[in-house]
Amino acid sequence: MSVTAARGFTASGVSAGIKDSGAPDLALVVNRGPSYAAAAVFTSNRVQAAPVRWSRRVIGDGALAAVVLNSGGANACTGPAGEDDARAMAERTARALRVEAEQVAVCSTGLIGVPLPMDRVTAGIDAAAAELSEDGGEAAAIAIKTTDSVHKTAVASGSGPDSGPRSGSGPGPGPGWTVGGMAKGAGMLAPGLATMLVVLTTDADVSAPTLDSALRQAVRTTFDRVDSDGCMSTNDTVLLLASGASGVRPDPAEFAEAVHGVCLDLALRLVADAEGASKEIEVRVVGAASEQDAVTVGRSIARNNLLKCALHGEDPNWGRVLSAIGTTSAVFDPDRLDVSINGVRVCRDGAAGEPRDKVDLSGRAVTVTVDLRSGDASATIWTNDLTAAYVHENSAYSS
Amino acid sequence: MSVTAARGFTASGVSAGIKDSGAPDLALVVNRGPSYAAAAVFTSNRVQAAPVRWSRRVIGDGALAAVVLNSGGANACTGPAGEDDARAMAERTARALRVEAEQVAVCSTGLIGVPLPMDRVTAGIDAAAAELSEDGGEAAAIAIKTTDSVHKTAVASGSGPDSGPRSGSGPGPGPGWTVGGMAKGAGMLAPGLATMLVVLTTDADVSAPTLDSALRQAVRTTFDRVDSDGCMSTNDTVLLLASGASGVRPDPAEFAEAVHGVCLDLALRLVADAEGASKEIEVRVVGAASEQDAVTVGRSIARNNLLKCALHGEDPNWGRVLSAIGTTSAVFDPDRLDVSINGVRVCRDGAAGEPRDKVDLSGRAVTVTVDLRSGDASATIWTNDLTAAYVHENSAYSS
Repeated sequence: MSVTAARGFTASGVSAGIKDSGAPDLALVVNRGPSYAAAAVFTSNRVQAAPVRWSRRVIGDGALAAVVLNSGGANACTGPAGEDDARAMAERTARALRVEAEQVAVCSTGLIGVPLPMDRVTAGIDAAAAELSEDGGEAAAIAIKTTDSVHKTAVASGSGPDSGPRSGSGPGPGPGWTVGGMAKGAGMLAPGLATMLVVLTTDADVSAPTLDSALRQAVRTTFDRVDSDGCMSTNDTVLLLASGASGVRPDPAEFAEAVHGVCLDLALRLVADAEGASKEIEVRVVGAASEQDAVTVGRSIARNNLLKCALHGEDPNWGRVLSAIGTTSAVFDPDRLDVSINGVRVCRDGAAGEPRDKVDLSGRAVTVTVDLRSGDASATIWTNDLTAAYVHENSAYSS
Repeated sequence: MSVTAARGFTASGVSAGIKDSGAPDLALVVNRGPSYAAAAVFTSNRVQAAPVRWSRRVIGDGALAAVVLNSGGANACTGPAGEDDARAMAERTARALRVEAEQVAVCSTGLIGVPLPMDRVTAGIDAAAAELSEDGGEAAAIAIKTTDSVHKTAVASGSGPDSGPRSGSGPGPGPGWTVGGMAKGAGMLAPGLATMLVVLTTDADVSAPTLDSALRQAVRTTFDRVDSDGCMSTNDTVLLLASGASGVRPDPAEFAEAVHGVCLDLALRLVADAEGASKEIEVRVVGAASEQDAVTVGRSIARNNLLKCALHGEDPNWGRVLSAIGTTSAVFDPDRLDVSINGVRVCRDGAAGEPRDKVDLSGRAVTVTVDLRSGDASATIWTNDLTAAYVHENSAYSS
């Protein structure tokens, strides 16, 4: 159901010919109102693509009428001409939809440093505008894929205080309000074309500041904690648009929970689709002195190539976990660290605990739990193993 | 010539049976004086192996009579029993050599979290003590190998102000003074057993503070700038022992230059022997506002898995270089970044420069030069590509 699960939105996806393969590569998501509130989170990479610079500018007033997205080219590191191209995409979309260019966000994903074929892009925008429909969410989700093996969508809905939000990708809106979304990004683990693009929509009647708060909270503990290979894109964008078409003004906490649910669902789909990966690894850090410490330790473990190789080889090598923890400045005593892998406490008090051969790593899901025994804060980071297939995907093609 | 190139040192390497393979796994390096000045640099990992804790303690007085080293087991994360084992290794060595245990440094490398087979280790120490000789440097260098495909030694010598230090691994000491050394560590790129151990010796008559200063200076711009996979060992140790046997008190600057030369030689041998790697990559950052900025940017590039895969695939993907630069807080303007790969300026002013197909990446040596255009500081980081062989070596064996 994707971005058209919520009432008040139309979408489409077409093949514009940006990709040589002829696969769909251009999508539109349009907010039909009555409200146009919007919020966004962008990459924190200081090298930012032209569409990110454009979108960051136009989201300033907390309103958007549409999003135009393309795969097949990132329009990053393309100089002043790239800036012109991003603006031209917004302008062409605005003309087709009879809105202002400043109401249109732009997202691009693909190879860095190569100009977009603008004649094809503009023709594609016109074609996509002609195909907009209330069922177009799937087509849009498909058109933003790069190395993704599947398109990714999620939906949650709520009706009021008596029924909390339901997460899932099942059928559409109930009588209340809905949050739906689509994402692309083969994690960061198949990132020949690494960018993560996410568009969320809701028919709830929510102000821009409330949207912004819900989105930032949700992103902080979902997309920001998926760390497949530590590489940060120049184009990452998460957008949330609200049409108000349900006429329901939800409880802010319930709404925030629904947004979080959709973000978490999509984030885990990114990890699950990390091509080249054979394991989905949840790194759970508990007993931390602060959440920041827990995140720092979790990220250090999730980025440790040696551990990621070991888990690929189904070796519960807890020494590599300790080695990764030791590179951080988090509060801990090296002689009081505990590590469990898939529930077996292989390291206790910084030394060997239960026998390694009790650990079953034959499945796809791996949980590494670290107890820093220094407080009661915790955090989870999701990552993947490091495989020869990852190397192949990121070395065999110019991408 | 290794650690016995300098006069006043004996060494040996034996098979103690710590490794199942029966390969040499225990080495001694003994300073016969007349001076016993020494300096050391240890891993900055906060999880430190028992031998590191021991050696850090005994180096406090700036003097060492011997070093005992073993491969086949890291004695890291082994709890209080591991501390006892490290001390027992020093004590056994001290008894065999008729010195004090506090004059003996201990270095171990191998799997983390597994106790050493101390009966074999102590018998090995006695055997190694019986085989000490002035020609034992090669045997010692061989006995500290883990996944290293070759053993690594280097020598530099100086005689006075009229002849600067000569670097190389050629024949032994001249009439003046000599610095020699051995290293193990298949970079950090084949680090099933990741530790880097280095022992340097000199017959120059140099005080402990001068040794310390020369060693820290040298390590800072050599071993500290080899960054094959961003993983930091619990056991890394670099030792420098001075016998004074040449009777020559060298100019401190000339001595420091010789130490630097030997360290750089050994560091580049580590990169060259990074098993699984097919490229040796020099990341040179120029035009930085500070050396720290240059190091930060260089390290971010050297640790970028996507770039390392691209270079493995001989793809001059400068977009991944910019993406890595953008994650740092160094001073730069994204629109004024220049990147050259093997001498071709593929990125100028943050956008495409010369055509990618002008870049020849068919050879083993790759140079990535980044000009931040923000100052005149510079730094070089050495790394390797990321290959399927790396994944295999670090996943196929429990190591």
